[in-house]
Amino acid sequence: MSSSTMTRVFNFSAGPATLPLTVLEEIQSDLMSYAGTGMSVLEMSHRGKTYIDIHEEVRQRLRNLLNVSSDYEILLLQGGGRLQNVMIPMNLLTTKDDTADYLVTGFWGKSSSEDVPHFGRLHLAWDGESTGYTRLPTPSEINLTPNAAYVHFTSNETIHGVQYASSPGIKSAPLIADCSSDLLSKPMDVSKFGMVYACAQKTSGIAGTTIVMIRKDLLERSGKRVPGYLNYAKHAKSAESMLNTPPTFSVYVTGLICKWLQNEIGGLEKIERMNIDKAALLYSVIDQHAGFYRGHANKPDRSLMNVVFRTPSAELDEKFATEAKGQMLSDLKGHRVLGGIRASIYNAMPLEGVQTLAQFMTDFALKNG
Amino acid sequence: MSSSTMTRVFNFSAGPATLPLTVLEEIQSDLMSYAGTGMSVLEMSHRGKTYIDIHEEVRQRLRNLLNVSSDYEILLLQGGGRLQNVMIPMNLLTTKDDTADYLVTGFWGKSSSEDVPHFGRLHLAWDGESTGYTRLPTPSEINLTPNAAYVHFTSNETIHGVQYASSPGIKSAPLIADCSSDLLSKPMDVSKFGMVYACAQKTSGIAGTTIVMIRKDLLERSGKRVPGYLNYAKHAKSAESMLNTPPTFSVYVTGLICKWLQNEIGGLEKIERMNIDKAALLYSVIDQHAGFYRGHANKPDRSLMNVVFRTPSAELDEKFATEAKGQMLSDLKGHRVLGGIRASIYNAMPLEGVQTLAQFMTDFALKNG
Repeated sequence: MSSSTMTRVFNFSAGPATLPLTVLEEIQSDLMSYAGTGMSVLEMSHRGKTYIDIHEEVRQRLRNLLNVSSDYEILLLQGGGRLQNVMIPMNLLTTKDDTADYLVTGFWGKSSSEDVPHFGRLHLAWDGESTGYTRLPTPSEINLTPNAAYVHFTSNETIHGVQYASSPGIKSAPLIADCSSDLLSKPMDVSKFGMVYACAQKTSGIAGTTIVMIRKDLLERSGKRVPGYLNYAKHAKSAESMLNTPPTFSVYVTGLICKWLQNEIGGLEKIERMNIDKAALLYSVIDQHAGFYRGHANKPDRSLMNVVFRTPSAELDEKFATEAKGQMLSDLKGHRVLGGIRASIYNAMPLEGVQTLAQFMTDFALKNG
Repeated sequence: MSSSTMTRVFNFSAGPATLPLTVLEEIQSDLMSYAGTGMSVLEMSHRGKTYIDIHEEVRQRLRNLLNVSSDYEILLLQGGGRLQNVMIPMNLLTTKDDTADYLVTGFWGKSSSEDVPHFGRLHLAWDGESTGYTRLPTPSEINLTPNAAYVHFTSNETIHGVQYASSPGIKSAPLIADCSSDLLSKPMDVSKFGMVYACAQKTSGIAGTTIVMIRKDLLERSGKRVPGYLNYAKHAKSAESMLNTPPTFSVYVTGLICKWLQNEIGGLEKIERMNIDKAALLYSVIDQHAGFYRGHANKPDRSLMNVVFRTPSAELDEKFATEAKGQMLSDLKGHRVLGGIRASIYNAMPLEGVQTLAQFMTDFALKNG
């Protein structure tokens, strides 16, 4: 353990989330002067060659990692998932009579659907609220609108810990995936989607950047109807020239994450294997101590990113988070919506952190069970 | 000169722009572990106490520096000036029959006005285009609409180098100031405005954060009509709890800038004095070599932030920027819209950088005149 890691905790925050140590070290070393330019990335004109190269390299690395064809535009926007909740229906519903279908498997899916009625008809093709958002729908439970303008789903629900292994596999309308909490955590076939988007601060970088990959034919729906910054087609038209100042430093960090995945991890198949192994460690402790820990999600739909569970009581949940913190295991308290305990173990959480947590969980169950 | 400054250039970029060296040093030193938390600000949950304290401190420091009364809400948003170009008319024009007045004194003012027709009537109360955006309007040239919903102006035009010393002083409608390139560069009486906003990457931080100070009575116009992230009232209601993940690292840097202004500079009166002196140095060289250099803006309307001028030819402009770069004076090429030369000398540009540039300008004029 190097001197710089000695003072660091294992940070299980659901996002913004822990970054790879080597990425932090590169940021720190670049900070006063990037690549001999005599200035920090923080201070760099977005119209200068150095930043343009950074920006284009990020878009290219994303394209390579996810094998995205030239049928798709890759945009680096701002405003997080919340702004996409508005931009998606605003751009893709061309009249107030158009219908958008939403599959709701947790808090974030519900939140994504809420701005739709400003622009057209909202139809919840499935809402798992009555199940306590413990599972995904079966194919027969999904009630699609014929001729929906699009179908939206949330690839991974960070609060309820429910994740699609791949996708709901819907082909009747352009499928839109909110991958804010699992983009770059595994390979995905982007060609099956009309649009894939993610805020960066969980698996793809830091807060400030929103990655949007949109099939080019869908850009026609934006037309001139959608104003300024909110118009996907306008961003796509100036994707290289940049419509306005991007969140430059945040984009640069996304580039470092991509480089780390490519050069240090060895690609998305490798990180997926690591993520499966890490999640298995925690779920196996939960299952071995099933009388003490209760996982929130149904087993087949368990998230590899957010392991959500509780102990027999709210008091023990609290004790768990507090004692864990004393052992350098940070941010394990569940989201206020659900309570309990949540361990977010995105790409950058090292195996060592998960092993330490698994041991702590075992000890805690034995001591308090 | 410390070892870290030795490799740094004087960066005259119009934005993102140079940061104070001590701010960069603090960022670098906090990078692996902020205030003993064992994690970087880059990785920190926005729902944790440490970040909440950072966020609230930034809002409080802005309030203190600018002496903003409790009649105003201070929001830290994303999307830059471009998103404000949409949000302003979307929130403040309540019907398509409402009229917004815009005073256009340069490229950015024109750009700000362009999304208005999506939401209501646009009236250019003055457009300096025919003057080449070399000056501000006289009071008698301003043609206001009776009962305009608001009047918008651009406090400083970075491309044309034209700046209001204070404000157009309009009281007939809520006055909205785009202070993206001069917020925190001098004291201002916020109580004279309905709204003051600024993207942070010129004088108030780095790209990613947009500061919005809005008078609370104006929030009523947003109502439930304006969707989700675009609704000022919704942001104001959750200003402390935060509507969504803010651009956390960028907000933290704005806090460091405020702290630097308060503790190292000694407040906005002090920085204004420094900015006046820096600009005077460059303008005096331009005026002393009036046969060689031509300033773009009329003298009374010259910007203290962006000194825009040209030499007798485009070839010499090019030679100027290239030779300056060889002497560690970077990013002096004018904006593509106007050509020529531009020296952006915001708060963080040290006097030493301006003195070096002034000497270079004198030498260049003597050698090439």
